[in-house]
Amino acid sequence: MDGIILTPLKQIMAHKGDILHVMKRSDDGYDGFGETYFSTIHKGDIKGWKKHTQMILNIVVPVGKIEFVIYDEETKEFHTVVLSRDNYKRLTIKAGLWVAFRGIDENNMLLNIASIEHCPDESINKEIGYIKYEWK
Amino acid sequence: MDGIILTPLKQIMAHKGDILHVMKRSDDGYDGFGETYFSTIHKGDIKGWKKHTQMILNIVVPVGKIEFVIYDEETKEFHTVVLSRDNYKRLTIKAGLWVAFRGIDENNMLLNIASIEHCPDESINKEIGYIKYEWK
Repeated sequence: MDGIILTPLKQIMAHKGDILHVMKRSDDGYDGFGETYFSTIHKGDIKGWKKHTQMILNIVVPVGKIEFVIYDEETKEFHTVVLSRDNYKRLTIKAGLWVAFRGIDENNMLLNIASIEHCPDESINKEIGYIKYEWK
Repeated sequence: MDGIILTPLKQIMAHKGDILHVMKRSDDGYDGFGETYFSTIHKGDIKGWKKHTQMILNIVVPVGKIEFVIYDEETKEFHTVVLSRDNYKRLTIKAGLWVAFRGIDENNMLLNIASIEHCPDESINKEIGYIKYEWK
């Protein structure tokens, strides 16, 4: 799908603990640092839909397992990906796409590196029924 | 201690899951984005000592509990802080200070937002005995 990038990331396993890469400023998808935050999502719960008009998201899932659904309202296309430490990738989402995500494990946490600081006027929120998607 | 900043951070609790603030570009302690990564540390293990000559660290602990010890070799001063979601703060560490950290819970993970990209020549590593500190 246009407007998303999935980048496999290194996990460096070591005796005392691991290093999990997230993002370097020279990486593809990096478009400035505005803000970074964690979002947790309980098992079975869905956050969404949300569309950013300016913010570019860069998301990794270091804890648990989260299903992301991205919807392009121009092409009517959906893209689904499940991220976790077993499928450890960075999901870059350009502005203009709708996003929703669901918690799969008991404890789930994502990190988002956002290209701009949070600004309530910049994003549009809709109820989950606004876009019809069959969550399995 | 000169060269460290401890900034309390918001955790916004919500029905489906929480939002944990980490850092905004307008925050005190932000000095450019070089790279961000996770580091895990097993219970009782210690990573350290390490001194960065250029990199400024901005550390949060979203999982478990980690004890940080910072040592200023000029003043011979130690500073200790335990971070977790119960003491959810951002620890900014300027270049030139020695750092070691120990895992306290079963699963412990920190996020570091580093002001420059990783570069092996930029940091100095020493065995844990190099600086005498009584780990309790």
